[in-house]
Amino acid sequence: MEAHGNREGIREALPPVAANPGWVGCRCVVCGREYDTVYAGFVCADCGIDGILDAAYERAGDTAVRLKVEGGDIARGLWRFSSLLPVAPAAIHPAWAVGGTAPLPAPRLARHLGLHSLVIKDDTSLPSASLKDRAAAVAMARAHQLGLDHLACASTGNAAASLAVLASRGGFRSTIFVPAAAPRGKLAQLLLHGAHVIRVDGTYDQAFELSLVAIAKNNWYSRNCGHNPLLVEGKKTAALELAWDLTRGFTSNEDLPDVVLVPVGDGCIVSSTAKAFIELHALGLINRVPRVIGVQAAGASPLAAAWARCGGGQATMSGPAIRDAITPVVPDTIADSISVGVPRNRVKAWRYVAATGGAFIATPDAAIIRTIVDLASRAGVFAEPSGAAGMAGALAAREQGLIGDRDRVAVLVTGHGLKDPGAALGACAMPEPVPPLG
Amino acid sequence: MEAHGNREGIREALPPVAANPGWVGCRCVVCGREYDTVYAGFVCADCGIDGILDAAYERAGDTAVRLKVEGGDIARGLWRFSSLLPVAPAAIHPAWAVGGTAPLPAPRLARHLGLHSLVIKDDTSLPSASLKDRAAAVAMARAHQLGLDHLACASTGNAAASLAVLASRGGFRSTIFVPAAAPRGKLAQLLLHGAHVIRVDGTYDQAFELSLVAIAKNNWYSRNCGHNPLLVEGKKTAALELAWDLTRGFTSNEDLPDVVLVPVGDGCIVSSTAKAFIELHALGLINRVPRVIGVQAAGASPLAAAWARCGGGQATMSGPAIRDAITPVVPDTIADSISVGVPRNRVKAWRYVAATGGAFIATPDAAIIRTIVDLASRAGVFAEPSGAAGMAGALAAREQGLIGDRDRVAVLVTGHGLKDPGAALGACAMPEPVPPLG
Repeated sequence: MEAHGNREGIREALPPVAANPGWVGCRCVVCGREYDTVYAGFVCADCGIDGILDAAYERAGDTAVRLKVEGGDIARGLWRFSSLLPVAPAAIHPAWAVGGTAPLPAPRLARHLGLHSLVIKDDTSLPSASLKDRAAAVAMARAHQLGLDHLACASTGNAAASLAVLASRGGFRSTIFVPAAAPRGKLAQLLLHGAHVIRVDGTYDQAFELSLVAIAKNNWYSRNCGHNPLLVEGKKTAALELAWDLTRGFTSNEDLPDVVLVPVGDGCIVSSTAKAFIELHALGLINRVPRVIGVQAAGASPLAAAWARCGGGQATMSGPAIRDAITPVVPDTIADSISVGVPRNRVKAWRYVAATGGAFIATPDAAIIRTIVDLASRAGVFAEPSGAAGMAGALAAREQGLIGDRDRVAVLVTGHGLKDPGAALGACAMPEPVPPLG
Repeated sequence: MEAHGNREGIREALPPVAANPGWVGCRCVVCGREYDTVYAGFVCADCGIDGILDAAYERAGDTAVRLKVEGGDIARGLWRFSSLLPVAPAAIHPAWAVGGTAPLPAPRLARHLGLHSLVIKDDTSLPSASLKDRAAAVAMARAHQLGLDHLACASTGNAAASLAVLASRGGFRSTIFVPAAAPRGKLAQLLLHGAHVIRVDGTYDQAFELSLVAIAKNNWYSRNCGHNPLLVEGKKTAALELAWDLTRGFTSNEDLPDVVLVPVGDGCIVSSTAKAFIELHALGLINRVPRVIGVQAAGASPLAAAWARCGGGQATMSGPAIRDAITPVVPDTIADSISVGVPRNRVKAWRYVAATGGAFIATPDAAIIRTIVDLASRAGVFAEPSGAAGMAGALAAREQGLIGDRDRVAVLVTGHGLKDPGAALGACAMPEPVPPLG
């Protein structure tokens, strides 16, 4: 397959990338220690792997102006929002110009679920068929800025596929660490895209540990969302696009959602969604922050369980208190991309969701399967189980009073059903054959 | 599943659609008889099912101007080219605003294949993951213009999926006729999207026959590409977009391709590709017509075989002579979407390809599988076998002198690999496990 064949002249031809001068650095979500933009580590030097960092931006007056002007240029993909990203390419190369998925109104599904209105942010049409391409695009641009041509991660799922696909497009090398027991179909897809796949004879956590050692030793760039804080920045662009589209370029708040539902595994996507709205609000581009509701599968819901236990006091808890409140679980759900027992971005996710006035809730697998059918038959969107989990939380959120009668709801659908069609297709009853003519 | 639940207020809320006043009617590809725009039949009244019609447009001076102005509005999806489509919606509803896939330069793959340059038109990211959505969008708009809310087709593949997905988005009803032996996974996906699936105890041709009777009896709208000539018009938009993008809005011919490779089953997509370039050239928007090469799988290549037999005389043959030159075959290929023994659009396809100075060629299944690997690992695009067939023809076309050393090549990738991953994934060798740390 010559996956590592001659790549000269490809990556080198990519446009130069600079750090966004408005990105001022990162702060540890647990202890608050600050790091500047040249800090070479990914997590807090004091807090270790729990010390996930959080990127911050200058609130210069012209950031809002730039976002309003550049937000309309959808040919730039997610880079039209580079004022709120850590890096900014000088010109957009198609290898990393992902994004620009249109919001899809779903009136039939809204009526079925008893929602006032419903818009789907359908990221299933991105190159690797999941929202994770937004993180991979930023990872590649950042690696290019740092002069690195090799990226690595530990994953068997959407993160790995997004790295393999975009690295192939951009001429980067990619190495992916997987537990040896990972499904062969998923591994084969990574191999097909030219990734170097290392099967580790152990658990996912052991594959992750080995990836960290190999990344440090070989000076690769880490596309592990669980510790690289800049990837969450890339994932923000789904919500930035949604806000841009629904406010007609930040000119009208009328159709801005009141509630946004997001599936939660490690907590990266829910963090980024909440963060996007909070940053736009701080810049005066939207007049309120939608409540972000993180939806976990009931069989992997440590955040939802801890949130319920802390009833009422969630918004005022310190980083260490949040970390300690969340009890690890042994995950058991059909939604494999969010089958996480210890969410690595748990403190960041909790903080941001609380800051929007949102919540974490859980939804059973049966509701996820029903929702896949509803999304397909009433909105024309085929989601994988984890991709449908946000939508599946709508009924529980209604029952708990988290969604009101007049609330405008938006939902992120994060991964395509063709990636994992088994459960959904099993729910379909075959019709009996009829005779032909004559 | 309540696939046929309450849909009131959805289809009715769609914007009104008018016939494009520049569309003057259709002409039979076999006998040349002309039909006006209100003709209710799909095929020629004299020639029957062989008498495929071909839509024609007025060459008014302002058509070119409109295309240059509206072509830049990619938020309109394929409707930005409605001056060259039979229908034109008054406003664009997201249910049918498909299209706008960006051209993807593939320098690594070009170098591997010995091509001067290569651009991929990657339609795998459309809503149902194939180019067929372009035809389904036009079918829905035409049905809406005629006041119909129910569409039907015979298919087990991409055409059926595109109808099911887009009908679900737009609130239309859909009925799909399939042979009873069709793979359950594919049928389940149609059911999931709310289509009414009728399994006919017989062959594909018997399912097609029953669909025609049911469509006429129930006054449904036909989404059978094999006889409805307006669907080919929708498929033109892939090439129209490619030409727009590569000429920077019809302002520079420098990067216009010299050769465009397209997979061929029934011959609809290859007809539409060639037709798009010919129409743009007639309007003075491009300064030459790229040579369109139709690529068939070797096990289903009646057009390529007949083309070779008629060596040299292809461009001057009459409709009946073309029809008679093509000998039916029993198809045998892994590329199921182009596994066709008697291409229904064979006369139209032959005419249009000949008019571009192009050709038909065949490629073996082994080359298709190798090409899937090349596309994935060197261009980051995962194609199903039929979707990769156009690209697979590049080597044979080089050998036959149909692609020269300095030719700029473009290729249509028409369907996503996740739809039919088996063959490709089987080609990947699993790496041996390594021990974890410690």
